[in-house]
Amino acid sequence: MDRLAIAEVRLTPVLVADPPLLNTQGVHQPYAPRLIVEVVTRGGVTGLGETYGDTVYLDLARPLADALLGHTVTDLNALPALAARVCGDPSLSSPRRSSRGGPDAATGADAVDAAGLRGVQTADKLRLSVLSGFEVACLDAWGRATGLPVHALLGGKVRDRVAYSAYLFYRWAAHPAGRGESDDWGAALDPSGIVAQARRFADRHGFTSFKLKGGVFPPAQEIATIRALAAAFPGRPLRLDPNGAWSVPTSLQVAHELRDVLEYLEDPASGTARMAEVAAGTPLPLATNMCVTTFREIPEAFARGAVQVVLGDHHYWGGLRATRELAAVCRTFGIGLSLHSNTHLGISLAAMTHVAATLPDLDHACDTHYPWGTEDVLAERLVFRDGHLDVGDAPGLGVDLDRDRLAALHRRWLADDGTYRSRDDAAAMRLAEPGWVTPAVPRW
Amino acid sequence: MDRLAIAEVRLTPVLVADPPLLNTQGVHQPYAPRLIVEVVTRGGVTGLGETYGDTVYLDLARPLADALLGHTVTDLNALPALAARVCGDPSLSSPRRSSRGGPDAATGADAVDAAGLRGVQTADKLRLSVLSGFEVACLDAWGRATGLPVHALLGGKVRDRVAYSAYLFYRWAAHPAGRGESDDWGAALDPSGIVAQARRFADRHGFTSFKLKGGVFPPAQEIATIRALAAAFPGRPLRLDPNGAWSVPTSLQVAHELRDVLEYLEDPASGTARMAEVAAGTPLPLATNMCVTTFREIPEAFARGAVQVVLGDHHYWGGLRATRELAAVCRTFGIGLSLHSNTHLGISLAAMTHVAATLPDLDHACDTHYPWGTEDVLAERLVFRDGHLDVGDAPGLGVDLDRDRLAALHRRWLADDGTYRSRDDAAAMRLAEPGWVTPAVPRW
Ligand SMILES: [Mg+2]
Ligand SMILES: [Mg+2]
Repeated sequence: MDRLAIAEVRLTPVLVADPPLLNTQGVHQPYAPRLIVEVVTRGGVTGLGETYGDTVYLDLARPLADALLGHTVTDLNALPALAARVCGDPSLSSPRRSSRGGPDAATGADAVDAAGLRGVQTADKLRLSVLSGFEVACLDAWGRATGLPVHALLGGKVRDRVAYSAYLFYRWAAHPAGRGESDDWGAALDPSGIVAQARRFADRHGFTSFKLKGGVFPPAQEIATIRALAAAFPGRPLRLDPNGAWSVPTSLQVAHELRDVLEYLEDPASGTARMAEVAAGTPLPLATNMCVTTFREIPEAFARGAVQVVLGDHHYWGGLRATRELAAVCRTFGIGLSLHSNTHLGISLAAMTHVAATLPDLDHACDTHYPWGTEDVLAERLVFRDGHLDVGDAPGLGVDLDRDRLAALHRRWLADDGTYRSRDDAAAMRLAEPGWVTPAVPRW
Repeated sequence: MDRLAIAEVRLTPVLVADPPLLNTQGVHQPYAPRLIVEVVTRGGVTGLGETYGDTVYLDLARPLADALLGHTVTDLNALPALAARVCGDPSLSSPRRSSRGGPDAATGADAVDAAGLRGVQTADKLRLSVLSGFEVACLDAWGRATGLPVHALLGGKVRDRVAYSAYLFYRWAAHPAGRGESDDWGAALDPSGIVAQARRFADRHGFTSFKLKGGVFPPAQEIATIRALAAAFPGRPLRLDPNGAWSVPTSLQVAHELRDVLEYLEDPASGTARMAEVAAGTPLPLATNMCVTTFREIPEAFARGAVQVVLGDHHYWGGLRATRELAAVCRTFGIGLSLHSNTHLGISLAAMTHVAATLPDLDHACDTHYPWGTEDVLAERLVFRDGHLDVGDAPGLGVDLDRDRLAALHRRWLADDGTYRSRDDAAAMRLAEPGWVTPAVPRW
């Protein structure tokens, strides 16, 4: 097993172009930070991983990388305790609000910040997200070293392709103040703009289900947009996700109005208590990547019937194997499962696809931001066919780095003065709307 | 991956000598049926598995063995669906009583039979138990083919040795009517006999925790035995398991009387409803390998607080990976975990030990019948040191078959007229007590 011991770990933070996509907290910055993890074994095999690249994650990733030298890439059950030892700050291990100061820090019990798009930020969640990048890199290295695809290391695929949905956003044509990269999507700020966006996604990638990021406009406008999508794509599964921006009565009203066209309603209200109230008042299933994002949150949420579909994210839960454990818990309790996405590159998409392929009861198309991206660190970008990604049998994740691309995106990170090194959707919004602060919830 | 495809599956039923150990349903027969599974890959590697050998299991194992030809040994997530397709009888997939006829078949809603020692027998449970033998054999083959121990294929060990407890039984000196093999343990039918048995286990294997199989004598006698053990081994963890033989009031009385010396009380009463009533009335944790033996039984049992420790058994749950999923569910809900044992050989003990080594929150010593056995199919029997088994890093399970021993135990199975091919503790009991029928529960 010595050839599988880790001889070197390389961490490369990058900044990746991101379009001006709107959500309830603000707008995506022109560049999003990601971290590329490379684990090199003594046998000379390199495994790839990817996770959040914000400074707060980087600060945990560096000591963990050092601690992994000599660790065997198959030795994955030991990683959580190792990470807790290396990165752990016991004072941070109870749920807490973001520690970031400034005008956008959470100001009340119900406020959310950028971190709040994934629920309340805690030290545990940060550490597990960092861990996920290393776990994926270890699995990739193990697979490459033994000639097995990552899905085989997870017990084998149960399907040959994984379904993804189109992830629709209200958006501007360009970032404010001439910042960032340009694209040819144009603005989408009303029903017809979103329907045009959906058509382009459907034509280009074959997606047949559609998710709209909501919480941007008053609910009546978003209801109208979903209605326009339902008219344009009759019978297709539709989803709406306002990131917890609504009150319980608003959530119930939207659920009632859209009950005939939504596959599920995603995080209409913030927190388990409100979600449980909404769930009790509508037959529409509620999905979440906010009120259930850790194992600790499951017992109360399941007992109260707060969610019917958990949108797992291997970054949140601590890796691909933890995602499979989440699936086992959901299966046991009759809760549905799908996979969630933030802005990411091809390594994370490949990782998602491998784990998704192994889950027998994945019964909704997965979310992905990937089609919004034009930059990647892969030699070859992944390609959707008929709204699906094929699950290959090449060793490891089956993807290869393009070192020139990686270096270029890293140079952008190096050159940044700190403006983009941590995601801050409210700061980006202030360029267009001076005085903008992260809205308190419920916003409507 | 072609070298990891299955070229041949060998099934060898055996009969293994078993001492006259008493339980609430009767007594162990002189010989216990087990099934040895060998999976041979195209690459020429052989993996070993072991499971129940009763005819009802064999009847499922044979078609599953045929269906596995060409299947890849890493392709484990597909096994449950494959087994359901090959072995499944939809009419049997809802909970049912044992289908065995005769005077020992369950006669009422609360009766248990030999299968009842593992809860109500269902087609699902039978199939998963058969599956477990194939899953272990596949993991062993995969490990041998890639030079990795089975624990590494499960994500790596988090401990270098696994603690086991001494499994104490009321027993006779010999089987009735001169049947079976003899041993030098002598009878143990009262407190001093059990204390002597415990001392011998402690001296020989170093066990420091002790479980008594109860439900054999009226509760007062078993309480006296536990008290004698507590006096002889002060401060040591003790357990008592009457296999659901008691009523709720009896269970509560025993719990109250032994609350200062028991680590947990195991299956005092039968069924989730009674267990929940007992749990509500005592601070003593309740353990089970009867009311929670499938994922399907978990939600109700956990919601009602019926059990505090699940005694997992990789045979019941469908293999080592399913046992890890059980562990994830228990961890999520704050339920304790340990591992259960029936009569078994060294292959199953090695498999148990590998999975136990990977479970971070295994906080009780595991059960094993192994020290009662003198026969095995292994070239070298596993050896307990200080009550533990070491977790090796040899490829696969790290154990090797002795083909002469396997052949000898198989010849015994071939020569048997059917008397011992299916476990029947009540039939064995009738040799000593004519007219014995499986007692209805609650017995006391
Ligand atoms: Mg969401
Ligand atoms: Mg038991």
